[in-house]
Amino acid sequence: MTDTTWKTAITEIKPNEVRLRGYRIDELMGEITYAQAIFLALKGELPTKGVAKLLDAMLVSSIDHGATPPSTIAARTAVSTGAPLNAALAAGILSINRYHGAAIYDCMGVLEEGLHLVKEAGKDMETIAVELLAEYREKKIRIAGFGHRIHTSDPRTARLFSLAEELGVAGEGVAMMMAIQKAFHESGKDLPINVDGAIAALLIDLKMPRELANAFFIMARVPGLVTHIHEEQTRERPMRRIHPSDHTYDGPAPRDLS
Amino acid sequence: MTDTTWKTAITEIKPNEVRLRGYRIDELMGEITYAQAIFLALKGELPTKGVAKLLDAMLVSSIDHGATPPSTIAARTAVSTGAPLNAALAAGILSINRYHGAAIYDCMGVLEEGLHLVKEAGKDMETIAVELLAEYREKKIRIAGFGHRIHTSDPRTARLFSLAEELGVAGEGVAMMMAIQKAFHESGKDLPINVDGAIAALLIDLKMPRELANAFFIMARVPGLVTHIHEEQTRERPMRRIHPSDHTYDGPAPRDLS
Amino acid sequence: MTDTTWKTAITEIKPNEVRLRGYRIDELMGEITYAQAIFLALKGELPTKGVAKLLDAMLVSSIDHGATPPSTIAARTAVSTGAPLNAALAAGILSINRYHGAAIYDCMGVLEEGLHLVKEAGKDMETIAVELLAEYREKKIRIAGFGHRIHTSDPRTARLFSLAEELGVAGEGVAMMMAIQKAFHESGKDLPINVDGAIAALLIDLKMPRELANAFFIMARVPGLVTHIHEEQTRERPMRRIHPSDHTYDGPAPRDLS
Amino acid sequence: MTDTTWKTAITEIKPNEVRLRGYRIDELMGEITYAQAIFLALKGELPTKGVAKLLDAMLVSSIDHGATPPSTIAARTAVSTGAPLNAALAAGILSINRYHGAAIYDCMGVLEEGLHLVKEAGKDMETIAVELLAEYREKKIRIAGFGHRIHTSDPRTARLFSLAEELGVAGEGVAMMMAIQKAFHESGKDLPINVDGAIAALLIDLKMPRELANAFFIMARVPGLVTHIHEEQTRERPMRRIHPSDHTYDGPAPRDLS
Repeated sequence: MTDTTWKTAITEIKPNEVRLRGYRIDELMGEITYAQAIFLALKGELPTKGVAKLLDAMLVSSIDHGATPPSTIAARTAVSTGAPLNAALAAGILSINRYHGAAIYDCMGVLEEGLHLVKEAGKDMETIAVELLAEYREKKIRIAGFGHRIHTSDPRTARLFSLAEELGVAGEGVAMMMAIQKAFHESGKDLPINVDGAIAALLIDLKMPRELANAFFIMARVPGLVTHIHEEQTRERPMRRIHPSDHTYDGPAPRDLS
Repeated sequence: MTDTTWKTAITEIKPNEVRLRGYRIDELMGEITYAQAIFLALKGELPTKGVAKLLDAMLVSSIDHGATPPSTIAARTAVSTGAPLNAALAAGILSINRYHGAAIYDCMGVLEEGLHLVKEAGKDMETIAVELLAEYREKKIRIAGFGHRIHTSDPRTARLFSLAEELGVAGEGVAMMMAIQKAFHESGKDLPINVDGAIAALLIDLKMPRELANAFFIMARVPGLVTHIHEEQTRERPMRRIHPSDHTYDGPAPRDLS
Repeated sequence: MTDTTWKTAITEIKPNEVRLRGYRIDELMGEITYAQAIFLALKGELPTKGVAKLLDAMLVSSIDHGATPPSTIAARTAVSTGAPLNAALAAGILSINRYHGAAIYDCMGVLEEGLHLVKEAGKDMETIAVELLAEYREKKIRIAGFGHRIHTSDPRTARLFSLAEELGVAGEGVAMMMAIQKAFHESGKDLPINVDGAIAALLIDLKMPRELANAFFIMARVPGLVTHIHEEQTRERPMRRIHPSDHTYDGPAPRDLS
Repeated sequence: MTDTTWKTAITEIKPNEVRLRGYRIDELMGEITYAQAIFLALKGELPTKGVAKLLDAMLVSSIDHGATPPSTIAARTAVSTGAPLNAALAAGILSINRYHGAAIYDCMGVLEEGLHLVKEAGKDMETIAVELLAEYREKKIRIAGFGHRIHTSDPRTARLFSLAEELGVAGEGVAMMMAIQKAFHESGKDLPINVDGAIAALLIDLKMPRELANAFFIMARVPGLVTHIHEEQTRERPMRRIHPSDHTYDGPAPRDLS
């Protein structure tokens, strides 16, 4: 049925040969990290060494954020009824939406709007940032990527930005983000850039399409969800009522990389 | 409500401090790869350098296998109706079950049985492998991890096993797997160890609990599914009828890492 | 923790007493149909006898539409890999979105817009219908609820509208829909009102909130999906490649009631 | 591609004709209830009048059980993050598993075992029931379908059984269930038959295949989940922490069918 023939540019399968975006997968194995392979799959090309290292740091930054997020609670609730791991993971992923995990997407939108205006209007970033702030305040829309329920200074942001600087990856995305933070400061409001805002700025500088923003958060969080599902399966009795915040940590004590 | 208080040993969240299994996440960022963080989350301890490198290769090996697997078809079918990315990904993950993606789990079971018998019966691996083969033949159960629809010699297996050898990670899991392959050969049947069988053997040597076997496959495949979803969204018209095998590859031509 | 206390107005549970919207569920059992209970749950009040009968017909009309729709294909694809019934059903439901199953929602929007304009502008429905058609043609948006891939005259629409008339339920929703169809006709285009368009018109007349439009389609289709999942489980081998249209019907021959 | 041709016996689609199990769907509309159509879809034949009425009562009995069940909490958690209705519903359905909603399946297994033994051993139900109880007590397996967290006498069970009697549908399934309850009583334990146990007994008498047991619960509960999702969407702020039991009912006051 020739009318149903379709094309894909991702992976080519032949007998005894699997090629991802043109590269033999067995040649990639041992040569690139999983994070590099993710970039290759999504973008079609291998990242530079600097981008590769930053990608690992970005994915590590969001791998887990404790037992409170709704995606974690949904996954634990599902597995607590006896769901297999993949179904519980699906329930968790289905709970990553506009109000949880989407800040990267929303913040990329603000940054893209800002950078577009910089080019269009021929003004500098700081001026545009002040104008953006006024615009959003008038529309009564919160600018995503700033502020955090728990952290007054998000430790992941500082690390991501210093790494990006060091690795030569920081560009106009990071610069625009900093300009907005400065505009907040000047308006009398000191707001931390949260990890989602930091990732948004970096995805701009990595030229990642905005519609993959949430995918980035989801990919990073999957192992965290799997770990919570496994902990629920091995540590708790089935069908318990899972209070979303009434829990305490009893894992390894604070320790440092030696 | 003290009766609902519960405990978690994964991540500790304090203001301006996020610790994964005791380590500050901002200290981990830039120091360990994403694959290492996955191991840390799941197992509670950092992997050795050799294990870390092998983990990256294992995750790379299974990141995608083209457009034909049912998880890919389900994800594409969902997104083709206008599903958001997370819902399409969930549909894909829900299609990873006993007959697709579970060979790692099943094969780990065979290997654990074999290794248990080696210890119990005081016989060597080759003898046990021959006995296992006879047992499974009698029960008419296929031994998972051997044979492949498309590959007569799975290129990913050879690479994983040579890396494991080189990195000093290969142990009794790999040895038992080779013993079973030898027993097949001696019974007149030359079957390739497929990538799932190779990963099963390595997960034994990494002391990963068997109930995380499928999780490993799912984690590895998530970025591949995301890439197919994104390709479907950006390249195809909505509501097309998706024939699961009538497609051709039109991506980058074969190329080598230079 | 008083800050987490919340309220629900749906079902009250006490020892030996379950009340849905105030009514004892054991009193409802045997007195109302399942369709009436659905209405009571969603709207908070029991339907009239006429509405009750129409609801049953509406739910029957959409219970299944064969093996081709993407929700059916996704559910079959998932179960074919060994998914449990609930996971396969979830995969099917995740494939009901903007381009499949959402016509009811979209069409209700058009009807609400038309009826709003009738009230605002003080014009009659036929005039407004002609204006709406022109507006949508200019915006190049297809008006949902008209036309069908397969049916040139949707048999379910005629039956729903005659029942609604007979039961005294047809109101301005149906009238507006007919006015739009007339406007199409006068513009030289004879388009059938499909079952989704008919349901949209009736949901307007039932004063069902528009955000439950898709829910209505999903609720109606769940038993159809379950039936396909069960057929796949009991009739097909696992991991087959499921061509979305290359199937034939071999069930009971055409037959009539009585 | 003839090798992919497959068959389905559920619905036949021709231009302007949709037939469910052989019947024109527009002929069914207005003549049968939705519950009857569900039976027709699943079993391939129309139910008798008595079975039809009982089916409605069975589906009504399980349409909702308040805000506490994990499926409800998972659906509310997902929608609270901004999930669309179908994704939240999927999260809810994924939380119906072995420990929540599966009692019907488990109880049908016990009843089938008991009825099989009655035929095999030529003993009467009461004797077999006593033997079953002893067997399960020894294996330390709870017999599903008895006892309830909240209800000491489940009002839905009494109603279902009296309706089944009245409609002439009660058969060996109900009889076996009563025999087991009597055996419990004689062993000094008075346990109520819960609604799942009652449905299990009736599904035996309806000759519904056991693998559709959970499907029955899921189908019945879908409208309840939809109602909770809609209430969460319209009544609560996004991203609230949803305590699974700290809620109160504020819906319509107790009222009777007049």
